[in-house]
Amino acid sequence: MIDTQTASQIILETALLRPSEEIKLTDATGRVLRENIYADQDFPPFHRVMMDGIAIRYEALSQGQSSFEIDGLQAAGDPQMHLSNEDACLEVMTGAVLPKGTDTVVKVEWTAKKDNGKIEILAEHINEVFEGQHVHDQAKDRSKGDLLIKEGRRISAVEVAIAASVGKHRVQVSQLPRIAVISTGNELVEITENPETHQIRRSNVYALHSALAQQGIKPNLYHLNDDAEELKVSLDKILEEHDVLLLSGGVSKGKFDFLPEVFLKIGVEKLFHRIAQKPGKPFWFGKTKSNKVVFAFPGNPVSTFMCFCRYFTPWLQRSLGDLHHLHMQAGLEEDFILKKSDLTYFLQIKIRIDPNGQLMAIPLRGGGSGDHANLLHADGFMQLPPGKDVYREGEVYPVFLFRSFSNTVI
Amino acid sequence: MIDTQTASQIILETALLRPSEEIKLTDATGRVLRENIYADQDFPPFHRVMMDGIAIRYEALSQGQSSFEIDGLQAAGDPQMHLSNEDACLEVMTGAVLPKGTDTVVKVEWTAKKDNGKIEILAEHINEVFEGQHVHDQAKDRSKGDLLIKEGRRISAVEVAIAASVGKHRVQVSQLPRIAVISTGNELVEITENPETHQIRRSNVYALHSALAQQGIKPNLYHLNDDAEELKVSLDKILEEHDVLLLSGGVSKGKFDFLPEVFLKIGVEKLFHRIAQKPGKPFWFGKTKSNKVVFAFPGNPVSTFMCFCRYFTPWLQRSLGDLHHLHMQAGLEEDFILKKSDLTYFLQIKIRIDPNGQLMAIPLRGGGSGDHANLLHADGFMQLPPGKDVYREGEVYPVFLFRSFSNTVI
Repeated sequence: MIDTQTASQIILETALLRPSEEIKLTDATGRVLRENIYADQDFPPFHRVMMDGIAIRYEALSQGQSSFEIDGLQAAGDPQMHLSNEDACLEVMTGAVLPKGTDTVVKVEWTAKKDNGKIEILAEHINEVFEGQHVHDQAKDRSKGDLLIKEGRRISAVEVAIAASVGKHRVQVSQLPRIAVISTGNELVEITENPETHQIRRSNVYALHSALAQQGIKPNLYHLNDDAEELKVSLDKILEEHDVLLLSGGVSKGKFDFLPEVFLKIGVEKLFHRIAQKPGKPFWFGKTKSNKVVFAFPGNPVSTFMCFCRYFTPWLQRSLGDLHHLHMQAGLEEDFILKKSDLTYFLQIKIRIDPNGQLMAIPLRGGGSGDHANLLHADGFMQLPPGKDVYREGEVYPVFLFRSFSNTVI
Repeated sequence: MIDTQTASQIILETALLRPSEEIKLTDATGRVLRENIYADQDFPPFHRVMMDGIAIRYEALSQGQSSFEIDGLQAAGDPQMHLSNEDACLEVMTGAVLPKGTDTVVKVEWTAKKDNGKIEILAEHINEVFEGQHVHDQAKDRSKGDLLIKEGRRISAVEVAIAASVGKHRVQVSQLPRIAVISTGNELVEITENPETHQIRRSNVYALHSALAQQGIKPNLYHLNDDAEELKVSLDKILEEHDVLLLSGGVSKGKFDFLPEVFLKIGVEKLFHRIAQKPGKPFWFGKTKSNKVVFAFPGNPVSTFMCFCRYFTPWLQRSLGDLHHLHMQAGLEEDFILKKSDLTYFLQIKIRIDPNGQLMAIPLRGGGSGDHANLLHADGFMQLPPGKDVYREGEVYPVFLFRSFSNTVI
């Protein structure tokens, strides 16, 4: 039996960087970028007008001129115009190129049109105008050739916007692994069936299917009976067609827990079996010579899901080359008492943000690893270190969240 | 001009609950549940064996018996057996029904097989056995008919698992709105094109496309030129085919900012124009008689995106009937100085969790609303109230995050 930290290390060491593939930018949200993205031009590409108004030579204004003849209109999307008459102005629109011969934009709210057709800068605003006002200088933000996005970035709306602006309508991203999610256990029936009194419906594989869907992965689902020969033949075939096997059940010490011996037979090397943790102790992990990995989670719903969140998700992130992480931790909302043991305890918690911006974890009691309905009230797990019996209010421990909580209504 | 709070209220008041539709459970992740889900049976549905071992009558043990004849094997998935010989035991597997006539499971690690074929409970563990040990009692977690998941829940892996376990392979969820994302501005060209020096590529619509994809919505994208007649005809048609229009650009005070007048002509009532905020001041919002809504965001990339996060996302959540929210706020990592004004300021921030579990917001300086490359370093916006010039380190303000940060590697 090994501890959580060692287990985590062993698992992460098997996470080799996935090959990359080119996909459409519009399909790339949530994927991990595998190329650097550079500015193909300056940002902005020209001196850009930031306000609707008039473009002038500041020098004219500073020499006392406050009304300007209109020499034309520079609209957004039109080629750059030229102010030929130094004492005149050009009307300009937001997004337009700043006309040649001008250097300052006076916004329309500070001007008035006079009867003689000239534009006048309102007296009360004249002193507020400064040289270069409302002009977003060419290359002010980024210069042509600058590195904009480094590979290893999880692509969100912002990365899509930047990639679009430099014309990257196709991008290199990490290939997603082919994943099989497999349930074992003769007591399980399909969710469309009515179970006999000694049966229950398959639910773990659907939990993992859903959790993988949130990562953009569509796994294949399988169910195998507790039969050593059937397991061997089927798993061998499934292993051939996938990069990762996620199993639930069949790794305890029962008579029908054939998986460890079957894995051996089909060339999956055991890297560990059993972690000093609760729930999830019987977790088995191994890999093949060709670096396919097998996560065989204990069959209890909470165990399966906890091990997925705590061990598989980081493995996936590393395989995808995702370099953007946040080490999450939270304070305990209240004391939590536990029978002292050598096992790391994964406590179900609800997350709250207190008025000071402090992440607080409310412990959820009740239910063992079989009570997955309890998880409905939880946002994640808090990892409590072994060897203690009282975890005090305010103490801070790592948390693993399975709900996103970036949504707010105010 | 109205303040952010008023704008937010006006917008949320237009958010009518979407109709519901029935979809497959395997497609339901991320959607909002629109029916209550009840236990169709007890949880667990039977007295469930929690450990591999033997099932006995505790009374026999308490009367001094410590070795038991094996009367058979109760496997998971098999109908319930019956211990006919009161002083014998049945071997049992995790997940099995507890055999009739037994009440306690002694785990296999605490037993040994004797030469006479009997199972003996190891002397050092006898005192640790208690009545009902390792039995997960029928209905202990939930009873048949109990409400498990209330409508209004955003469906995650946990909800999928519970729905699967009660046989809900199809579920009622909120229909997603049909959304059109429209760019305006003659300076914009397609992302596959090489812009002339006075042009830039469309990026805002791709940002919104991506942000909507994260919500499971596939919007239709359009580009319209700055021509009042073309805008009127096209927008009228687009409005017919969608529930929501998201536009960027064309709502400032420029000569070619035709949108407000066009909206009027096609029956979109203005609910407000301009919010006392920076960026995003010229934001226009309206609705039709049939409750279609039009979010016309200012064209600057940061303005568009900020308004989307701050105003559209909560509108969407409310329309979908999503009742699960977290009011996010964070402490300022360092002082932030601003020119005092009447505008609410949306500061670009990076989020950090300090060792105490405190959410901290690192202010990102540099770049105006046109500098969307700056957003690459940001995780969200912090809403700073107007009328102040110094926002002190440690002060707590609401934040609107556009990256999920539930991912951790330890």
